[in-house]
Amino acid sequence: MNIAIIGSGNVGGALGRRWAQAGHQVIFGSRDPGADDIKKLVAESGANAKAASLAQAAQAGDILMFSMPWPAVRQVLESLGDLSGKLLIDATNPLKPDLSGVDTGTTTSAAEQVAQWARGAKVVKAFNTVGYNIMANPAFGSEKPVMFYCGDDKDAKSKVKPLIDELGFEAVDAGPLAQARTLEPFALLWISLAYANGLGREIAFKLMRR
Amino acid sequence: MNIAIIGSGNVGGALGRRWAQAGHQVIFGSRDPGADDIKKLVAESGANAKAASLAQAAQAGDILMFSMPWPAVRQVLESLGDLSGKLLIDATNPLKPDLSGVDTGTTTSAAEQVAQWARGAKVVKAFNTVGYNIMANPAFGSEKPVMFYCGDDKDAKSKVKPLIDELGFEAVDAGPLAQARTLEPFALLWISLAYANGLGREIAFKLMRR
Repeated sequence: MNIAIIGSGNVGGALGRRWAQAGHQVIFGSRDPGADDIKKLVAESGANAKAASLAQAAQAGDILMFSMPWPAVRQVLESLGDLSGKLLIDATNPLKPDLSGVDTGTTTSAAEQVAQWARGAKVVKAFNTVGYNIMANPAFGSEKPVMFYCGDDKDAKSKVKPLIDELGFEAVDAGPLAQARTLEPFALLWISLAYANGLGREIAFKLMRR
Repeated sequence: MNIAIIGSGNVGGALGRRWAQAGHQVIFGSRDPGADDIKKLVAESGANAKAASLAQAAQAGDILMFSMPWPAVRQVLESLGDLSGKLLIDATNPLKPDLSGVDTGTTTSAAEQVAQWARGAKVVKAFNTVGYNIMANPAFGSEKPVMFYCGDDKDAKSKVKPLIDELGFEAVDAGPLAQARTLEPFALLWISLAYANGLGREIAFKLMRR
């Protein structure tokens, strides 16, 4: 299956690079696919990667890895037109500009809004809870960080789980898409620990069981 | 320092029992301090423990370990009168009755409300992010779960940290009291994983660093 990266910034770039290197066909979607940083990303990603506009990437991809700053999300999704039959992995976080909280209240979430705006796509939330540096390399010695995913479509979730696992996370199904109402604040906890509270970006959570 | 348990249910009971067994003076505060379950708790806790009414416990304690169902919180705190000079550890979670979310929105938190209602007390949020079974025994083999605490008073936080550490958690300062806006949804993630999503109660998070 082709994976289209819708928003080839830090998060989308890190994920697409690794999936391409692992053998997936990856299309880096960008507002400016000829930009130097996109060319560099394609070159680093190897023979399985190419670049395209956001709309071209979305049309060509079976799986859309969606990562955008929150203020851009609605406009970009609506510009992509009909996404029927596609699986969209939503990594967005609805952060207030001052990082003081999420911008969606407690009775919805970015993921649920994305599911309304991405016409026809099946939406799974994932890759929103740690920084891109952890996605580039999740290993903490021999230990794996947890990566939660959630969604309302069982089949879609079953396709996302191996994409998480193969990067070196422990993929854990956290339930329906509305679980994003806790996973998005969880991202804010990581962000505030990493930055405001001085723990730095090289942190992640392991889910322990006994 | 005396520790008064304000609300000797599952969470307060587990914490008070362990602190008493570790040598702290513990007063189990209860609406009905003569009830069989409170007598049992005192007996299990050993010679350092006794029971009292909520008001008596609050007056006698230097540190108030506050754990109550959310609908009771305001009334109980206001009934305790002046709490000047006391340190209150808030373990409450503002859960909606159907567990679909937190009841405080995204611009405040239970902890911040508790700080308004607990007249004169210094408030530190802690012990809200895992179930009481984990507080009773945090060990996952040789690994420790993280326990975040947050608050606006440095001195108060420095007194709470060792109380967390000595139970077998890794106590991590998560910042100002407003960080409860992410720690309370984090509790909801644990609850929903443990119950609705079938992982069971024997789970916890380890904070990994590299």
